[in-house]
Amino acid sequence: METVQETISKKLQPVPEPSVRRMPQYLHLVRSMREKGEVYVSAPAIARVLNLDPTQVVKDMAYTGVTGKTRVGFSTEELQFALEEFLGYNRKHEAFLVGAGFLGSALIQYQGFREAGMKIVAAFDTDKRKFGTDIQGVPVFSLEKFHDLASRLHISIGIITTPAGAAQPVADLMVAWGIKAIWNFAPVALRVPEQIIVQDTHIYANLAVIINKLGQQKNG
Amino acid sequence: METVQETISKKLQPVPEPSVRRMPQYLHLVRSMREKGEVYVSAPAIARVLNLDPTQVVKDMAYTGVTGKTRVGFSTEELQFALEEFLGYNRKHEAFLVGAGFLGSALIQYQGFREAGMKIVAAFDTDKRKFGTDIQGVPVFSLEKFHDLASRLHISIGIITTPAGAAQPVADLMVAWGIKAIWNFAPVALRVPEQIIVQDTHIYANLAVIINKLGQQKNG
Repeated sequence: METVQETISKKLQPVPEPSVRRMPQYLHLVRSMREKGEVYVSAPAIARVLNLDPTQVVKDMAYTGVTGKTRVGFSTEELQFALEEFLGYNRKHEAFLVGAGFLGSALIQYQGFREAGMKIVAAFDTDKRKFGTDIQGVPVFSLEKFHDLASRLHISIGIITTPAGAAQPVADLMVAWGIKAIWNFAPVALRVPEQIIVQDTHIYANLAVIINKLGQQKNG
Repeated sequence: METVQETISKKLQPVPEPSVRRMPQYLHLVRSMREKGEVYVSAPAIARVLNLDPTQVVKDMAYTGVTGKTRVGFSTEELQFALEEFLGYNRKHEAFLVGAGFLGSALIQYQGFREAGMKIVAAFDTDKRKFGTDIQGVPVFSLEKFHDLASRLHISIGIITTPAGAAQPVADLMVAWGIKAIWNFAPVALRVPEQIIVQDTHIYANLAVIINKLGQQKNG
């Protein structure tokens, strides 16, 4: 059991975002090591495989609460459990997705999220022809039903996969409807109140950089 | 036609990466404006919709080569064409994908890339049961066939959607086999020679940040 003081100090010091972003890397690695039957792993070994600084790995491990044993390192079983706890993979956040086009459908079909603590439970669109259909069992509703369903189901995550022009209005609606975190795949920088969590995954921007650099190499 | 000097000066000054990353935003916006029948758009209007600095928009537009008209702004038709040219959407780069799991399959099914200048033409895996199958018409081969097919088809982009542990070995193979750009979706920081273009899209890291911050709000 942790003391009240420890709990308070944990709250005062949230884990730095770069460390949080590395946690799934550790988890993926530890899972594959366990599949191979490996019982212990050391911080330097983790650092080597993931191309990270060993000191950084030691610090990150401390945030998960696991303690290694001298010479052998961390128990892979304990580490997997601690990382899954840290990442909230054992809780399951339910999410609503707006924009049931190609990208939205691909994300719904990508079952990997379910193992990563998030489940997309419904999709919304403004295209009437899609209402009442489903994508691999995930129903598609009219956007008008978002508010009622989100509050009834206590949905905290909203995923935006709309065209660029619709992303900001949809984000505004999500905020008004009580969504706490927005995961934005549309190629737009969203304006939202400070307390709303926003993460952007700009797939097109990544692709644009690749194609632009390839073009430069060809000309160079 | 551009002069030799212009061509040289363009080469000496590659467009800054943040500007390149914004180009798809502009293109998505201009396309949706044209669908609504809008013939002109001004830089301040673009800046407003995309939450950008107007001065930055003017600079970015200059990189595409389009010139606006006083008072009315840019022709949306000209701008769309210039952006598609800039982004290489009219060329079509062919890509090979390694790791035909959930994420790989989702990316293959996500047809949006085809409109964005990249087409995934084949997938590779190490799971024998997948050899000879296809994902929406895209064939899945043994990883051993990558080299031969890539050099025959002049493939320059390699997409990695393998588990974390396999990503670095696959990247090493891609480099050895002549791939010029790697788009990495695996949760690992890749080590590659300097001349290789690498773009990371760490989906799990984005999700981890969302879930971690939601947890903090709940505790706070």
